[in-house]
Amino acid sequence: MALVVQKFGGTSVGDTDRIQRVAERVIRARQAGNDVVVVVSAMAGETNRLVKLAYALHEQPIGREYDVLLASGEQVAVALLALAIQKRGVAARSFLGHQLEIITDATHGRARIESINAPILRAALEAGEVAVVAGFQGIDPKGNITTLGRGGSDTTAVAMAAAINADVCEIYTDVDGIYTSDPNVVSSAQKIARISYEEMLELASLGAKVLQTRSVEFAMKYQVPVHVRSSFDDSEGSWVVPEEAGMEKVIVRAVTADKNEARISVLGVSDKPGMAAQVFGKLAEAEIIVDMIIQNASKKAQRTDLTFTVPKENAVQAQRLMEEMAGELGAAEVRADTRIAKISAVGVGMRSHSGVAATMFETLSASGINIQMISTSEIKISVIIDDAYAELAVRKLHTVFGLDAP
Amino acid sequence: MALVVQKFGGTSVGDTDRIQRVAERVIRARQAGNDVVVVVSAMAGETNRLVKLAYALHEQPIGREYDVLLASGEQVAVALLALAIQKRGVAARSFLGHQLEIITDATHGRARIESINAPILRAALEAGEVAVVAGFQGIDPKGNITTLGRGGSDTTAVAMAAAINADVCEIYTDVDGIYTSDPNVVSSAQKIARISYEEMLELASLGAKVLQTRSVEFAMKYQVPVHVRSSFDDSEGSWVVPEEAGMEKVIVRAVTADKNEARISVLGVSDKPGMAAQVFGKLAEAEIIVDMIIQNASKKAQRTDLTFTVPKENAVQAQRLMEEMAGELGAAEVRADTRIAKISAVGVGMRSHSGVAATMFETLSASGINIQMISTSEIKISVIIDDAYAELAVRKLHTVFGLDAP
Repeated sequence: MALVVQKFGGTSVGDTDRIQRVAERVIRARQAGNDVVVVVSAMAGETNRLVKLAYALHEQPIGREYDVLLASGEQVAVALLALAIQKRGVAARSFLGHQLEIITDATHGRARIESINAPILRAALEAGEVAVVAGFQGIDPKGNITTLGRGGSDTTAVAMAAAINADVCEIYTDVDGIYTSDPNVVSSAQKIARISYEEMLELASLGAKVLQTRSVEFAMKYQVPVHVRSSFDDSEGSWVVPEEAGMEKVIVRAVTADKNEARISVLGVSDKPGMAAQVFGKLAEAEIIVDMIIQNASKKAQRTDLTFTVPKENAVQAQRLMEEMAGELGAAEVRADTRIAKISAVGVGMRSHSGVAATMFETLSASGINIQMISTSEIKISVIIDDAYAELAVRKLHTVFGLDAP
Repeated sequence: MALVVQKFGGTSVGDTDRIQRVAERVIRARQAGNDVVVVVSAMAGETNRLVKLAYALHEQPIGREYDVLLASGEQVAVALLALAIQKRGVAARSFLGHQLEIITDATHGRARIESINAPILRAALEAGEVAVVAGFQGIDPKGNITTLGRGGSDTTAVAMAAAINADVCEIYTDVDGIYTSDPNVVSSAQKIARISYEEMLELASLGAKVLQTRSVEFAMKYQVPVHVRSSFDDSEGSWVVPEEAGMEKVIVRAVTADKNEARISVLGVSDKPGMAAQVFGKLAEAEIIVDMIIQNASKKAQRTDLTFTVPKENAVQAQRLMEEMAGELGAAEVRADTRIAKISAVGVGMRSHSGVAATMFETLSASGINIQMISTSEIKISVIIDDAYAELAVRKLHTVFGLDAP
């Protein structure tokens, strides 16, 4: 007998057949003696349909009304799933964001959960009901509907688990867990049995779509054990948990490639105080997120080269902004390169093992791969390389860090 | 400068083009200096799509979750209409049932509005916003979503108008007003300029689909002037208003035919106390609504014939129930006839004019039409006849009561 939160994404509830399968899985957990909270996303395709309608009426729909619109998708899904569960003789009750008082800040489209009225949820469970909760949505303190951004239902699920102190938050998805690398690129990629929050956070930030970054932050903050598993079978997936003894023995947990960034270089900038603040202030104003930054002091004439990466979709805009500032900055030239890849190695073991960076650089060098930029954190090393070598680099690093063996 | 509530049905917001046309109409009213509250239904087809999904998962979905499901349709519509209004530079804000605290009783699927938080609505208007309100939905005192039944958005609109003491509640529809008879049957049918609440209530009860019965009750209770008009043009429609001096000069306001009832006759019932209570108790238990009732005392052997009408879709069930009770009742026979029509004449002028019934019976008799049942109220006479003569009867009565002329 445990307290279980299960989250199903849009694909898992994509049509009435799939909704029935989800209902059966929920009921199996219930009949095994567990109290069950289910969090669901909108049926696959539904959100796109709504988005299309909104853009047919307004070129910039994002805001209060867009959230009202999108939240309807989860509303449909919870009602249908509750009906499918009831049809099988098991009590179920749907909850929308406002009904559970899922209070968020007022940032429409990417709101953050601030609090939940857990007693309402507990009362449903105590009454023997399966609580079917709409993911992705909340309300701001004034009662306006808000949404949590792409993957927000993961965060809803983890927040529910945290609020009621659940034993586990199960994230059902179309992959069966978290892998040491992308199995489409690295055929020897292994499913990771247990991974720490810190490592998962780095992987999520690096573009692993299996969990929304905020959901991992939430899980870490409230120490919620998360089980990422397949919605198609009952096999064990990957557990995201607090760091455990022995985790550090594995130096590198995963190797990833991310081709969604572009590199902007501003060459020959006058090296005077406030220059960086000026550049990155401008980019922040334009809401462009900067990832890696390198400044190479050039000895002659107090000039420096400033290089940074931005999401590929912002590359043209970032380049234009830099060109506009070139005069002010005294810059000689602005270059943009979209054919780059960020290769990263992640693992809490790096804290206690030296030489990881050296191994990484040597391995790439031995394959004739040039490193353009480097960035490190306590448990991550990332390098920017020519994107043509991305797959080669990932495979070589996967092997050298001992991840090929089960 | 007035305070106007406008209601648009599902057809009026059936696609993004139509939503834009509604937005333009709303803005015209706003720019003419009015404060505007718009009430909308779900986009045409949307409710059917949701109903189909629900029935694919549960054979009897009606209840709490079904209301959660259906209410999503209006949520989509208000968000889209608010976006379309905002796109044209006019401030707009959508409101769902729970946001306006539209409190209803807890009868899912046909809830009744009990109260509304009018100050919230007024605050939006004072802020210069068009308030775009989801029709058809509310919440019960516990916060569960409820729906108001078919045509419920009319009631939402009238309730809004009552709550903020609006100058008019405009109901936009695909007909351009209320007619003296069905123009498809009576080519000389005239648009009614002004009709009293009482008359409209009778017409709505007789199956006129242009306004939900409850919305008329609400309008009457709070004396809300209702203007039923075309969503396709700006022509004057029909006003539903408190009874005015001179209204009684028109003896009959409208003549209608309703073919949706069936007649059940239970013949040779023992005429003892409690018999009627037994019969109609049984029908009420089965939630079958009985309209007309006639009991013909038969002199011999203290036997009586009991005849009543029920909605056609309940005819088989009602007949079966009566057959089951036949022994108890000492009834000789149960007959059902689905080929009947109810012909009605409605008008507040009947109160002050005698001879209306006589004129009606004579007119039918002159056309060789046999009257099977008669029922009267203060402002209505209804007769049951063979449905083959329905159109003939309506045309003859329309002429004899002077309704053919403009």
